[in-house]
Amino acid sequence: MTTPINIAILGASGYTGAELLRLLENHPHANIVALTGDSKAGLEAAEVYPHLRDLGLPKLTTIESLDWTNIEAVFCCLPHGASQKAIPNIPDHVVIIDLSADYRLKDEATYEQWYNEPHHDAARLKEAVYGLSELAARDIRKAQLIACPGCYPTSVQLPLVPLLEKGLVKHENIIVDAKSGVTGAGRSVKLGNLYSEVNEGIGAYGIGKHRHMPEIEQGLSIVAGEDVVISFTPHLVPMNRGILSTIYVNLTEEA
Amino acid sequence: MTTPINIAILGASGYTGAELLRLLENHPHANIVALTGDSKAGLEAAEVYPHLRDLGLPKLTTIESLDWTNIEAVFCCLPHGASQKAIPNIPDHVVIIDLSADYRLKDEATYEQWYNEPHHDAARLKEAVYGLSELAARDIRKAQLIACPGCYPTSVQLPLVPLLEKGLVKHENIIVDAKSGVTGAGRSVKLGNLYSEVNEGIGAYGIGKHRHMPEIEQGLSIVAGEDVVISFTPHLVPMNRGILSTIYVNLTEEA
Amino acid sequence: MTTPINIAILGASGYTGAELLRLLENHPHANIVALTGDSKAGLEAAEVYPHLRDLGLPKLTTIESLDWTNIEAVFCCLPHGASQKAIPNIPDHVVIIDLSADYRLKDEATYEQWYNEPHHDAARLKEAVYGLSELAARDIRKAQLIACPGCYPTSVQLPLVPLLEKGLVKHENIIVDAKSGVTGAGRSVKLGNLYSEVNEGIGAYGIGKHRHMPEIEQGLSIVAGEDVVISFTPHLVPMNRGILSTIYVNLTEEA
Amino acid sequence: MTTPINIAILGASGYTGAELLRLLENHPHANIVALTGDSKAGLEAAEVYPHLRDLGLPKLTTIESLDWTNIEAVFCCLPHGASQKAIPNIPDHVVIIDLSADYRLKDEATYEQWYNEPHHDAARLKEAVYGLSELAARDIRKAQLIACPGCYPTSVQLPLVPLLEKGLVKHENIIVDAKSGVTGAGRSVKLGNLYSEVNEGIGAYGIGKHRHMPEIEQGLSIVAGEDVVISFTPHLVPMNRGILSTIYVNLTEEA
Repeated sequence: MTTPINIAILGASGYTGAELLRLLENHPHANIVALTGDSKAGLEAAEVYPHLRDLGLPKLTTIESLDWTNIEAVFCCLPHGASQKAIPNIPDHVVIIDLSADYRLKDEATYEQWYNEPHHDAARLKEAVYGLSELAARDIRKAQLIACPGCYPTSVQLPLVPLLEKGLVKHENIIVDAKSGVTGAGRSVKLGNLYSEVNEGIGAYGIGKHRHMPEIEQGLSIVAGEDVVISFTPHLVPMNRGILSTIYVNLTEEA
Repeated sequence: MTTPINIAILGASGYTGAELLRLLENHPHANIVALTGDSKAGLEAAEVYPHLRDLGLPKLTTIESLDWTNIEAVFCCLPHGASQKAIPNIPDHVVIIDLSADYRLKDEATYEQWYNEPHHDAARLKEAVYGLSELAARDIRKAQLIACPGCYPTSVQLPLVPLLEKGLVKHENIIVDAKSGVTGAGRSVKLGNLYSEVNEGIGAYGIGKHRHMPEIEQGLSIVAGEDVVISFTPHLVPMNRGILSTIYVNLTEEA
Repeated sequence: MTTPINIAILGASGYTGAELLRLLENHPHANIVALTGDSKAGLEAAEVYPHLRDLGLPKLTTIESLDWTNIEAVFCCLPHGASQKAIPNIPDHVVIIDLSADYRLKDEATYEQWYNEPHHDAARLKEAVYGLSELAARDIRKAQLIACPGCYPTSVQLPLVPLLEKGLVKHENIIVDAKSGVTGAGRSVKLGNLYSEVNEGIGAYGIGKHRHMPEIEQGLSIVAGEDVVISFTPHLVPMNRGILSTIYVNLTEEA
Repeated sequence: MTTPINIAILGASGYTGAELLRLLENHPHANIVALTGDSKAGLEAAEVYPHLRDLGLPKLTTIESLDWTNIEAVFCCLPHGASQKAIPNIPDHVVIIDLSADYRLKDEATYEQWYNEPHHDAARLKEAVYGLSELAARDIRKAQLIACPGCYPTSVQLPLVPLLEKGLVKHENIIVDAKSGVTGAGRSVKLGNLYSEVNEGIGAYGIGKHRHMPEIEQGLSIVAGEDVVISFTPHLVPMNRGILSTIYVNLTEEA
């Protein structure tokens, strides 16, 4: 019999935290012992997400008030920027799974270029394992800090990495036309995410400047053995969930 | 040949203003000479609503900077509360069509009870014409201030008023189960109006306390000749526009 | 340790069958040993529902070719009418859970009135257990034939039965205004279920003649101890799943 | 004062016909004198499309029973295949605007290759004017038979033709990733167009074999002065209307 793992979740009140809770609920080895949520600290989990009220979850607290003694693993569901400030304070015995963008890029300068500010925990960038589980299962098992891949980068690397590894597609002129549901933008309250603005339309956004672009290029470049530059156009589609990335490549002679 | 009417629109940058512009564009007698929009003052109309860029519309200004001399009619698309503060400053030669809730209720005390503050222009409440055009065409023609009915009240009064007039339905136990699209909530940016919160669900809201309830009861009571109390349950439906009100009544002996 | 139960599913290729498979997949005691699907007989389960391809499900067959020897329970996901023809041929040792409407009504004449043809297995109508699990758990455990309640009837009986039992609501003038997602209509290919016909609208249908009405009235009448007649108006809402029933009742003196 | 033009519409009961009626209603020179609709012949227009009941439209008839004497122009809203059989029987004095795909391709062999059967009116293919009105206004005015462009081809040619004319984009490696609403598939009743199949998803279809591909290539090739081959991937998006085509090109030296 496997002993359950004691788990904390930081930033449990957003969409990411809620979905994580739903998945962990059915996991035979997960024992959720702590939840934090800044603006919701002090509330019962059932008050934040009524549909999870039967899970016997702990009350939400602040990160500062957490007792880490018995916590073995932590999922960090904080927004990027907040994650890199919280993680340095976590004791060494805790395995960290970060769902933000903060530890995905290996290169400090690239991070600063795309996020417009220096990284607060740059020393750990190199040591973090990029956790695309289908491709990095072995490294994940030994990691102390795991950076979960972004949504778009997952949809692009899963099909492209094997093709690049086998030399079947050329490294130039890779075009990614990606379409995402609306929860990808999280639960932030802004005009562009209103129902009446999104419904019955589809639009491209962040052309040439979406922060998932360097993450995708980093992943493809590692396996290609040279710098890969892609053309990446994300679109917002009127649906809650899911991503479809239509990818255009040129085949090599071998293929 | 009819001379076009010179028209101003106050609060032209919300959904109400944009839809009004779209309708007036095809109207043979409407000549739009002024647009105001507080937060958008100084912008071209095309910057606010790109799809209307070919209409040759004037630049947005503030209400204070309007020159009323040549304006014959004004549509007031301000939120409730703001309307009753702007309208007293409009010169007498201008016909006012108010699309907010501010002049719909005849009774000052009822207004204060439902809107939690005294009315700023109560003297005009009695004089305003309740502009349900199918039923009040004659009065509208002579009015100086026309209060446009709310969306739910229109959907309920149009079918019920003729039945009450003819004595076909009883005055008691009228139940209105109303379903509205999301633009009914306007363009306000709040969590409950996010795509991911509205999509794939339907819910009742404001039960027993929706501000359209006294407006409906006022309209039905006038034609019934006695106080009519209804049961009113509005619902939010995942669609942009439209209202369906399912109304349950008991027939009279005559019917 | 509980021994898994060997289960067959008849009519596994519709929405009902697919959803049942999804639920059973996580059930610790369910062992799916046979699937049937008339028009899909001979296909792999993965060809019919690609997202279930990892479950190791058996190939689809015809009902006639089933070997019942080792089957302990069967879920019947056939359309109404087809169920009552298939069920008489199932051996006595098999517990039958019927998800169609065929065994929900107790009274043969009521069935014939609402379904416009005589019942083919009327003798079993009285013996079938009406399986609203929250209210009939004890009977379900001993039953050989369980009729699963309809979607609308479930949404109405769960809140109303306890109130009727405690005498808190009157038996007269119960109004049910129900709103359903589109999968409630199943996977049948007809004009009214096309995306462009359903999207961006809401409408009432089957007013006064929806076949779930007698089922609801039967359930409420049993607990009320007298005939209960309801007013039932179902609506189709542009969403995939879910039902919201807004129910209007008059309270008794006790309440 | 311009005299109104007497217009007939063939196949008026589909989505194309209904939308055409809605547009013509506000047209100052259109006088609709005849409507046909095979399966709906004999019905009032108001029975087919209740929202158009106030337009005073004529009853639907069959094509065969039309009296062409006073008809000056006809819109043909029949499906492809049916159009090319009906049009040869229309008298010469009538200007024909065909909204099907039947006269869009200039080359008989290309038609046969993509539609899997010989064209029934091939002689007229060369003479028909390809009616992309922004680019062919002059020819349209003199034409006797106008082939209206397809939806995808319009979305691609409008932006690309001017760029090709000015020599700003290369003729090779043009990639079109197109996203369409569901009414593009017409009102045909098939599984893939059901609400529950389309809603909450997005998918590519007809990759490399969509019949709009040769039409796009024909249009681009004419302006490029050589054969242009594109990569075209259409997608179905959960919305009623609209097309967004994201187009990837390589710039020429000049650009």
